[in-house]
Amino acid sequence: MPDLAVAWRSPERQRTGPAGNRSPHSKRPSGATRAKSGEPLSTEDWISRAWNPAQLRRLGRAFSDLAVAELCRGGGPVLAPDFLKRTRSLLRSARGGAERAPGWLRELCAASLHQSHPRAMAQQICAPVPLAALAESVVAALNQSIAVWEMSPAATLVDREVMGRFKKLLGYPDSAEGSLTPGGSFANLTALQAARAALAPEAWESGATGKVAILAGVQTHYSVARAAGIMGMGTACVFPLPLDAAFRTDAAAIPAVVRRARRAGYRRFILVATSGSTPCGSFDDLEAFARAAAALRRQRGTRVWLHVDAAHGGGMAFSPHLRRLLRGIEQADSIAFDPHKMMFMPLTAGAVLVRAGVRLRGAFEQNAPYLFSPVRREIPDVGPFTLACSQRFEALKVWLVWQAYGPRFFAALTEAVCAAADAAHDYCSRSRILEPVHRPQANIFCFRLRGKSSDGRHWAIKEALNASGQGYLSSTVLDGGRCFRMVAMNPRSRRQDVIAVLRSVERLAAERA
Amino acid sequence: MPDLAVAWRSPERQRTGPAGNRSPHSKRPSGATRAKSGEPLSTEDWISRAWNPAQLRRLGRAFSDLAVAELCRGGGPVLAPDFLKRTRSLLRSARGGAERAPGWLRELCAASLHQSHPRAMAQQICAPVPLAALAESVVAALNQSIAVWEMSPAATLVDREVMGRFKKLLGYPDSAEGSLTPGGSFANLTALQAARAALAPEAWESGATGKVAILAGVQTHYSVARAAGIMGMGTACVFPLPLDAAFRTDAAAIPAVVRRARRAGYRRFILVATSGSTPCGSFDDLEAFARAAAALRRQRGTRVWLHVDAAHGGGMAFSPHLRRLLRGIEQADSIAFDPHKMMFMPLTAGAVLVRAGVRLRGAFEQNAPYLFSPVRREIPDVGPFTLACSQRFEALKVWLVWQAYGPRFFAALTEAVCAAADAAHDYCSRSRILEPVHRPQANIFCFRLRGKSSDGRHWAIKEALNASGQGYLSSTVLDGGRCFRMVAMNPRSRRQDVIAVLRSVERLAAERA
Repeated sequence: MPDLAVAWRSPERQRTGPAGNRSPHSKRPSGATRAKSGEPLSTEDWISRAWNPAQLRRLGRAFSDLAVAELCRGGGPVLAPDFLKRTRSLLRSARGGAERAPGWLRELCAASLHQSHPRAMAQQICAPVPLAALAESVVAALNQSIAVWEMSPAATLVDREVMGRFKKLLGYPDSAEGSLTPGGSFANLTALQAARAALAPEAWESGATGKVAILAGVQTHYSVARAAGIMGMGTACVFPLPLDAAFRTDAAAIPAVVRRARRAGYRRFILVATSGSTPCGSFDDLEAFARAAAALRRQRGTRVWLHVDAAHGGGMAFSPHLRRLLRGIEQADSIAFDPHKMMFMPLTAGAVLVRAGVRLRGAFEQNAPYLFSPVRREIPDVGPFTLACSQRFEALKVWLVWQAYGPRFFAALTEAVCAAADAAHDYCSRSRILEPVHRPQANIFCFRLRGKSSDGRHWAIKEALNASGQGYLSSTVLDGGRCFRMVAMNPRSRRQDVIAVLRSVERLAAERA
Repeated sequence: MPDLAVAWRSPERQRTGPAGNRSPHSKRPSGATRAKSGEPLSTEDWISRAWNPAQLRRLGRAFSDLAVAELCRGGGPVLAPDFLKRTRSLLRSARGGAERAPGWLRELCAASLHQSHPRAMAQQICAPVPLAALAESVVAALNQSIAVWEMSPAATLVDREVMGRFKKLLGYPDSAEGSLTPGGSFANLTALQAARAALAPEAWESGATGKVAILAGVQTHYSVARAAGIMGMGTACVFPLPLDAAFRTDAAAIPAVVRRARRAGYRRFILVATSGSTPCGSFDDLEAFARAAAALRRQRGTRVWLHVDAAHGGGMAFSPHLRRLLRGIEQADSIAFDPHKMMFMPLTAGAVLVRAGVRLRGAFEQNAPYLFSPVRREIPDVGPFTLACSQRFEALKVWLVWQAYGPRFFAALTEAVCAAADAAHDYCSRSRILEPVHRPQANIFCFRLRGKSSDGRHWAIKEALNASGQGYLSSTVLDGGRCFRMVAMNPRSRRQDVIAVLRSVERLAAERA
């Protein structure tokens, strides 16, 4: 371990004072010095510097104004073409005390991808609801940790209130249990842990010796196979289910794949359906999955768990029109659902729900007398059934937006982004240069160049578009070839924004003909 | 799945408009109606309502002012005795549009545990540095997701800059690799995954058949044994190491415990040391652990990984005085380190570092063509070696505070909280009612009633203190009995705050004599 002077050849180049032979925990730490006297700053000096209410009010308001500008961004490039140069310059030059912080953040915003720009349509990261984003400074100031009721006496109630609404939203009973998570990968990992604890309870203590197979569509998010690797189930336990013509998982294939898994020695099965696949936003037929699970359960000695990864699509349940996409979800044993996707919350807000609450509460075991209450309280600790120990109070922003605008607001936002994907499909259907790869079921739409065209050309055009600042798209591999991928995650993306981005793609394709 | 009308018997009781036979993705979603005409709100209506810059600036500034007040809180109760009634009342009554949101948040703040109150000393959740907390609204507004460079073109550079500084801080080479995580539990899980991938690479694909033992002190955070359960290693693979008289893990016991594990068939070992134990803040002798690991490695056919859980204590490295507690940490194969603890960041900011970077990059495998770049870019995607897919831009607050105040600031804060624990120890040493259970190595201090006293009495006094609003403590089991636990996590906790809390405990003990 190098000594401190070496470690601190860091960019800010503060004067290093004499470390000397001070007593531990001294009141006057060595280091930075007072500008005038040259004396090192005392703890009091540091505190009056960093906890100065008048200065903080000024800084906080400046930050907040910056946030509003970013959240309401309309024109200009989606990403400044010189972002790399500007970011590097900022990293080199940011110096000189807290008063300068708003300037640094302004420059960082200018150099960042503008997620709230109506022409940013690349990934499943949303243009957040402004009210939710602005409340994050309060979340941070409160710094309530949700794992332990003692540390979040009021916040736990808000968290449980939000969880109760999610249960209702997805048709789960009160006896279900759930928690917010830092995202969909953790929600899937938690759900699979609950599944294994139910199907192979011996694994917790003795290790993953019981064989459990996972049957999942080939478009299943990578976090599911990854969870199998992490959980010591072995990624070889994942049996892919094929897609139907509309890029949904073909539930009719389940019996044949189960037979294959049986031949490999598996008797316990986790079925994974997806509501809103990552590549193209397709929604599996959950009722067909539920029927397949029920049929399997009737086979002697077979144990089954049905998990629905609705990380993307769960929020569609708010819309009376889109809700049909989730029909049957209430029959799942567990659900992953990300409010930071179709509820347009800023990162992070994921969620996991388990229909038989006791299955989630029993999925982990721990002994932590410094943390969890030894007596039964009216309001329980959440930590015993969450992967996280320290947990951010993510429920606040969800609750706040819900109270301020009501649930129909979420319906309107999901419908708006689906309408944007529809508009893109309409345009490509009529374009002479672009063609749809599929009809969007929701807000993700894949399209490609008409005629024969290489993967490399699609990639290069996407890169050129993103570098131009005129739009921002992603790409994926679908139907055997690379294609363009538009993910509408901004309710402020209008038809004309969609068309403008598609026209830019056409132009770039023509230039590269 | 119930129909929407049933699902929405939720508190806000918005009028449910006619769903009727609208086309999917229609521009005029059913639901809330305009106040005057009774017409349902269109998407445009909703957007002009929720993306109104003038209103948002007003709300954002009000939120920010609230945050500043909370961050600088001094007097009043640590937790309002009527918090439960107030929170329930808020949940019942919060109605009426975004303009009311500041009032709701004001009431929520009033009913919450005041983490920034100088007499809140219960758990390892800090009084955050105000500048960091205030920047969270900008983090949320930018909504950059760190997993994929494409979605965080500028933010990834900041994230990598911070990671580079952490490597230096902890004495790791540039070739180390790491990422921020949503907390210490995820950092430990990631590190153990890297350890297993190194010791038993077959486990990823084929399942956890190779036996790997974990040797960890009995005070090791519960997330380590939990990770063993999750990872299918089986919690039975965790072999506890005893403590020495100062409640540090006794590294001298490693050879004997290894022999026991060998008799149970284990040949691969993960040693876990702790820098800042959860119960009492003890720091293991990392040099002794490193020597034990080296000795084991010399035994034929033995594979070893040394992990240091410095989630709590990693930040001590900033202080020239406290840095000695971490001596030897640079020899660890992996380190967990939470900036949301001793760097006083608001939740969440955890981190994991792996000395041989290639071991972290190889710990997970995935194929996600919609996400990760198929070509090698100058700036890599972070997602391939993180548990999370969507990732909050947590590095911003760390970087901002570092630039604004310099690294000596972190040193001063850690030294201040350690001084508070020292003051508590001094007081209890002289008290006729309280006695120290140990001499604090850092900022966690356990103490108890002198003479014979029950676990129940300690619990009841702690509960009474917390309910009184005069202080906030936790309790744990140490040395065979329940005791009080003070965790100094607020640099603004002075000696007089510490003494006031201890006097309240004495008073409550006397009342219950």
